[in-house]
Amino acid sequence: MSHPPAFGADVLARVADTLESRRPENGGDPQTSYVAKLLAKGPDAFLKKIGEEATELVMAAKDGQAERIVSETADLWFHCLVTLAHYHLRPEDVLAELARREGLSGLEEKARRPAD
Amino acid sequence: MSHPPAFGADVLARVADTLESRRPENGGDPQTSYVAKLLAKGPDAFLKKIGEEATELVMAAKDGQAERIVSETADLWFHCLVTLAHYHLRPEDVLAELARREGLSGLEEKARRPAD
Amino acid sequence: MSHPPAFGADVLARVADTLESRRPENGGDPQTSYVAKLLAKGPDAFLKKIGEEATELVMAAKDGQAERIVSETADLWFHCLVTLAHYHLRPEDVLAELARREGLSGLEEKARRPAD
Amino acid sequence: MSHPPAFGADVLARVADTLESRRPENGGDPQTSYVAKLLAKGPDAFLKKIGEEATELVMAAKDGQAERIVSETADLWFHCLVTLAHYHLRPEDVLAELARREGLSGLEEKARRPAD
Repeated sequence: MSHPPAFGADVLARVADTLESRRPENGGDPQTSYVAKLLAKGPDAFLKKIGEEATELVMAAKDGQAERIVSETADLWFHCLVTLAHYHLRPEDVLAELARREGLSGLEEKARRPAD
Repeated sequence: MSHPPAFGADVLARVADTLESRRPENGGDPQTSYVAKLLAKGPDAFLKKIGEEATELVMAAKDGQAERIVSETADLWFHCLVTLAHYHLRPEDVLAELARREGLSGLEEKARRPAD
Repeated sequence: MSHPPAFGADVLARVADTLESRRPENGGDPQTSYVAKLLAKGPDAFLKKIGEEATELVMAAKDGQAERIVSETADLWFHCLVTLAHYHLRPEDVLAELARREGLSGLEEKARRPAD
Repeated sequence: MSHPPAFGADVLARVADTLESRRPENGGDPQTSYVAKLLAKGPDAFLKKIGEEATELVMAAKDGQAERIVSETADLWFHCLVTLAHYHLRPEDVLAELARREGLSGLEEKARRPAD
């Protein structure tokens, strides 16, 4: 991969910042922004998209089409970010949880290995 | 957030590196690693988890429980990362797609705004 | 199909009767019955199965395997029946809704047809 | 319930008959019929609806709203019937599978009971 190391966190944090600015109390306008419309409608509107995009990712994967897999994963993560924004949560919280588990799982997997 | 800027990309890339090492042809051992087992079983095993974790995220969100929302999003993203690993894709591809759309959507939203 | 006309309603109603007898207050025993265990655990336990079985049906359909499609649809409908039982609803309610729509849609489709 | 015994099978079989008539080769017209349009588009169109309606059922159940639970279950079953129609399968096949399991599970549950 040719992306600079800070690329990912920058993208997720930047998207999260944009989503926060689309919250109704931050002046998000449902007339001009898809996200402001979703956030104004409330949870069922964007949670329904999570079920839908998860299914579309599964279908893209069954078809083994790389471009669609990337695109549907982006759709799914995007609506996860909308969900996080609604509940005043941040992608950094999710990344911290993944980091925490990675540490744990590293230890667990070592512990489970048969000594030889 | 108190996380350093490069935190996110580091976590996703690091998890992706670990997942790659669990692929059968890289010596992943289904006896000692949950991920190696999923990857050895093939797509249906981890795609089923995507449907399951998406539903659990929806339920956590309906209950409005912040900790569970973060934890279920982590579960969902983790199994997305397993899916990407199986198809030789990287989280950086998904982040690049999100970045591309963010740019597009910024332009689109500007274009759609009524001139005044 | 060689099934007698009343076969379907009998099956759904009979399964619903069995599920009702597995409700905790009707003496369903989580130790001996899978359904009693699901109903005792509460909604998240069986709703999670709906997300899971829906995904498995989608994967079976993508594979075009008739036997798995039937089997996964049965799994999905079964967990819908468990959900209905928990909320004191009956499959007959769902069938009545389908019948009502069928009538409506018949009329709608006629109305929409261009007169000639 | 005040429905006559044959009500259920009649509804499912009747809906299935209607769906079959909407198949492209049976003259279903995507311009005038929602189902003909779904069937003409192919599996991804109606399988996506299964993921979506399953999620909507889960949300209705979390809200404990009886009418929405019935309505979303009807939506979900309807798109299952569309899926069955596409693959030349019938609701009677699913009901036969449910009946078969009911018999098995009755026996299994008896077998598992501690003798006393």
